This record gives sequence, C-alpha cells and structure tokens, in this order.
Amino acid sequence: MTPLALTMGDPAGIGPEITIKAWSKLRDTSDYAFFVIGDVSIYEKLLADAHLPPPREITDPSQAASLFTDHLPVLVSTQIDDLEFGTPNPQHASAITTSIEQAVSLSLNGKASAVVTCPIAKENLYKAGFEFPGHTEYLGKLCEAHTAPYAKGPVMLVEGGGLRCALVTIHKPLSEAIADITPEAISQVAKTLYGALEVDYGLTNPHIAMAGLNPHAGENGSLGMTEINIQNPTAKTLRSEGVNISDARPADTLFHAESRSGYDAVLAMYHDQGLIPVKTLDFHGGVNITLGLPIIRTSPDHGTAFDIAGKGLARPDSLIAAIKKARFLADNRTHYVG
Amino acid sequence: MTPLALTMGDPAGIGPEITIKAWSKLRDTSDYAFFVIGDVSIYEKLLADAHLPPPREITDPSQAASLFTDHLPVLVSTQIDDLEFGTPNPQHASAITTSIEQAVSLSLNGKASAVVTCPIAKENLYKAGFEFPGHTEYLGKLCEAHTAPYAKGPVMLVEGGGLRCALVTIHKPLSEAIADITPEAISQVAKTLYGALEVDYGLTNPHIAMAGLNPHAGENGSLGMTEINIQNPTAKTLRSEGVNISDARPADTLFHAESRSGYDAVLAMYHDQGLIPVKTLDFHGGVNITLGLPIIRTSPDHGTAFDIAGKGLARPDSLIAAIKKARFLADNRTHYVG
Repeated sequence: MTPLALTMGDPAGIGPEITIKAWSKLRDTSDYAFFVIGDVSIYEKLLADAHLPPPREITDPSQAASLFTDHLPVLVSTQIDDLEFGTPNPQHASAITTSIEQAVSLSLNGKASAVVTCPIAKENLYKAGFEFPGHTEYLGKLCEAHTAPYAKGPVMLVEGGGLRCALVTIHKPLSEAIADITPEAISQVAKTLYGALEVDYGLTNPHIAMAGLNPHAGENGSLGMTEINIQNPTAKTLRSEGVNISDARPADTLFHAESRSGYDAVLAMYHDQGLIPVKTLDFHGGVNITLGLPIIRTSPDHGTAFDIAGKGLARPDSLIAAIKKARFLADNRTHYVG
Repeated sequence: MTPLALTMGDPAGIGPEITIKAWSKLRDTSDYAFFVIGDVSIYEKLLADAHLPPPREITDPSQAASLFTDHLPVLVSTQIDDLEFGTPNPQHASAITTSIEQAVSLSLNGKASAVVTCPIAKENLYKAGFEFPGHTEYLGKLCEAHTAPYAKGPVMLVEGGGLRCALVTIHKPLSEAIADITPEAISQVAKTLYGALEVDYGLTNPHIAMAGLNPHAGENGSLGMTEINIQNPTAKTLRSEGVNISDARPADTLFHAESRSGYDAVLAMYHDQGLIPVKTLDFHGGVNITLGLPIIRTSPDHGTAFDIAGKGLARPDSLIAAIKKARFLADNRTHYVG
C-alpha cells in the first residue's frame, strides 16, 4: 500500500506531539500507514519521553508501510536546531516549507497517496519571506502546473460532526468577503465541490445545499438581494450544467441533524458560516480538506497551539481524523498525475 | 400564582396546535399555568379532535391557575372567521395584534407574569397596515412608555443547547448589519444583556464572550479591523463600567461544549452568527427572548409553518421551552411596572 505523507508543520507547535500520538493510536495495523517528513531527532525525543519505540529513518516512502506497526517512519529532510516548544523560530521556516514541498512532490509522483499537513504559523513564515495567505494557497501554487481530475481549486472544505462545508470566500474581512461573492466565484467553488463529491467521496448525484448570505436567506428580498440577484440565478445555471445544487437556503436552519440528512455538502458563503457549525458540532475531530488539487490533502482544523506545545496536553483527534479521511479520499480517487 | 399569557399568533399557522399540545404536556401541575388570548372556538375544535377536555373561557387571568390542570384557559378577546389552516388571512390581522396588545397590557399591570408569543406572519400583517419589522420591535413600541429594570431594549436573545446569544444587529442584509456595528450599538446591547443576566437570570458577575465580526476575530488586523477599531475599545470601556465582557474572540471556536462552559452568554454581531450555533445544537428546543423590556417575553424560535399547519405534525418542544423559560425569568425578576 502506498503510504500517506505527513508534513512536520511548525516544530515548535503541537505538530510533533500529535504526530507521535496519532502513530501510537493507529500503529496496530498498517491500514493508515504514514511517514512524516522532518528531523528525526524531534520525534526520537518525544517517543522516548512517551516510552514508545524509537522512530526509524527511511530513505524512500516504499519502506514506510512494512515498518509502520513497529516504528514511526521518518523521511529525513532537514535538521532543526534550537527547538524550543512554544516559541516559533523564523530559522525553521525553510525546513517547514521544505517538508511541505517534499510531501507534495512525493504525492504528485505517486510515492505518497496523499498529503496530511501539520499546523504551521503563518506569521513565523512571513518573517522568513513566505508569501501565501495560508497552507491552502501555498499548496495551490505548488500544484499549479498539474491539473485535478475535476474543476480546479484550491477550495477549502471543512468536515466534522456529519457535516461538510465548502467555502466560497475564506480568509478575508467579512465586508470584503461579501463583495467577493460573485456568480463566477460561486460557480467555480460549486463545480469543484461537486467534482470532489463524485470523484473523491465516490457519491452518485450528490446534492449541495447552498447557504444564503443574508438572514433568512434574504426573506424574499426584504433582508438583502444577494440571494435573488446572484446566488439563485447562479444555482439555476449550475443545475442546467448538471450540478445538483439548491437555491439559497436560510443558514440558521441548515445545520441541525434533520436538515443535514438532506444533503451531502453545504456551499457556505463565508468562513464563519461554514466553520461555526462544523466546530460547534465537532471541535476536536474536524478536518480541513483542500479540494480541486491534483493531490489529496487534508489537515487537522486547528493551529499550532504554541500555548500548550511541549506540555503533553495536545489531543491528536483532529490529526487522526485527517489521516483517516486522507486514506478514504485517496482510495476513492483514481490515482492521477496531470 | 400569577399565570403566563400566551398570544394566539397567526391562527392559520401552527400556533393553536402547539398551544394545545403544550397545555396537554404541562397540565399535570399548575407550575406552568398559562392562559391563551384568542378565539375559544379554534381551541375547542383542536382539543376535541385530540380527544382532550374542552377549553374553558375565563374573564380574568386570576381564574387560570386553578383550572389549568383540567382545562385550557382561554381569555376571549376576539372572533376568528373563515379560518383555513395553512392560508394566512389579512382579515385576522387585528385579532392577532389585539391578542399581543392584551397580553402586554396584562403583563404590564401584573395580571400576567410574562408574555409568551405564538408565531406571526409579518407579510400577512403588513397587508393590514402593521408597521414593525417583527414581534420584537412591536413589543418595544407597546412598552416604550415603561422602563425596564436595566438598560433598555428591545434586544433579541436566542437560547438553546446550553447557549445564549444576544444579537447586536438583527434583521438586516449582512452588509448593512456590518455597518450598524458601532460602539453605541455594542454598548447598548451588551449593557442590556448584562442587566438581564443579573436580574432575569439571577447570575452574579456574569461573563459575556464577545464574538469577533471577522474570521479569526480579524487575526490581529490582517483579516479585518472591526475588532481593533470598534469591538475591543468598546469592550474595554464596558469593563471600566462594570460589564464583564471579553475582547472579540474567534467565532468559529466559541460555541463548542468546552468553550460554552467558560461564559454565560455570547454577544453576537449578526443574526446568523448567533442563530447558527443555537439552532444547530438545539433545533426543536430553542427559545427567543426579548431583553430590556419592562415585561418578560419569550417565544418559540420558529415561524408559523403554514406548510404543516392543520396536519397534526407540529412539535410543541420550542413553545414548551419558551413557557418554561418565561416562568423561570418571571420568577427571577422582581415584579416591575414602570
């Protein structure tokens, strides 16, 4: 089986700790075999502290699956000096991005099934010249020469608590996000989502519920015109193109259990519209998935948590969910290199 | 015990049906004694269809508590002609508003402990000249000559799933709501909420968590300046005035169980920011409460549901929760007539 590639993330955050915890929980079989790309000494120390077997350096991903149940496989990419948990260090920036680049490269050439990223701290990377608003956009750049098996992303999907939400706008001030809700943006994200539901989730004729921007989905125009002028006409066009999407529905009644059973995913207009219900329902087990890439990529939906790094307090639930989801999606998608 | 006053709501909606269902569930004691203000014949028919005892007309609220366990008490205010469930009739408008006015009046003069309103359909009332954006504003008008025991409302609070959210902006297009988030608006709503938590909920030094408008609460300004320019300075001033409120916190991580245990209520900036988590957590049992009035007022947090009216399908959960909440709040608040 082709293993999953885990990135190191920011080593001063909780990434290394949740990585060894996730390995410890998943190592009873090789079903979720993965390797991590980073500095082996970090994992060595954490595993020793946890009275777990030492990691094993590998030189090729093909070595990972067979030793996964006995040792955490580490593809050594770099050396981390002066690591202090809780204190991000700009000198680690290139090691952090190298780990991501290698994971993407191995996934593009079929040596890894998917990329699972540990959290990074953007501000720390910015100090070292990193230019992207976040992981998602950076991965989009790394993959831009390759095409996905469906409409092109990157599109951010959050999943948890039996709910999947794709975001039309992501990391923008809310007023700017509203201005970015155009027919083109809705159409692009909806098509990417629809393709992902078919290809990566293996669903037949999936149904997308579109959340209205305004309260009560605008209440026939009395509480806003975005639904009437932009969202519903775009949905109509999308339906004529074969995308099974609803008109704008009131967001407040869209996310409870009975409602969730009526669709496969929600198209949310802005960050908190999608992330509030997912994190309210499943704070620890939420997964962030990037759709529309030539590779499968998932990540936990939390950050580096510098405040608790190195204290043994971090929960691996979200990373474990991300690993399992990456396996599921990779198994569904016919292996593709553009 | 002073009973609660229920309004009829739009008789063509599910109000009468959930009223008799709520009475049937609560009638084993007089703890939640209420009377409804409307046309007795509507309830007569529904009770007969449900094989329940007939309603009893009363002429004064003081008659309600003693007969509540045997009969639904109805204070007859009006006659409803041509009732067809599912089809709102503008000719019922004056009966609908009269029921509300009487309930408010009885509550103001101490004959009722609180007002619990059944759903109305604004569009139906608009056809008959009703001029208010909703129930909340209409109640504000009816009470405007009287003062509340704390900062003046009306402020909309939604409660359910262990969560209370007060709204700084309510029924506006989202872009207009953003423009309405001023220091004055935040301050007024926060003070009303704080007073209500002390007076109506009986809490000592309650804590309010303020939700940031933008994703990640603006992420130190990189995703929006509302938190830095408006929300946090206003919170600082409020704290200096004795209101225990946080700076703006990221909304997506504010509503899960562990987070909820750290505050008594959330100050939400816009409708869906507060209503999405409440209705996601507790779709059937949510309650809408109007704070800052000289009377206690609660209501179910759903609408008239004309599509299922008259079919016996409506669930009384939210109305029952609203009745119980009204009793709780009325018992806490020292009876007040301004």
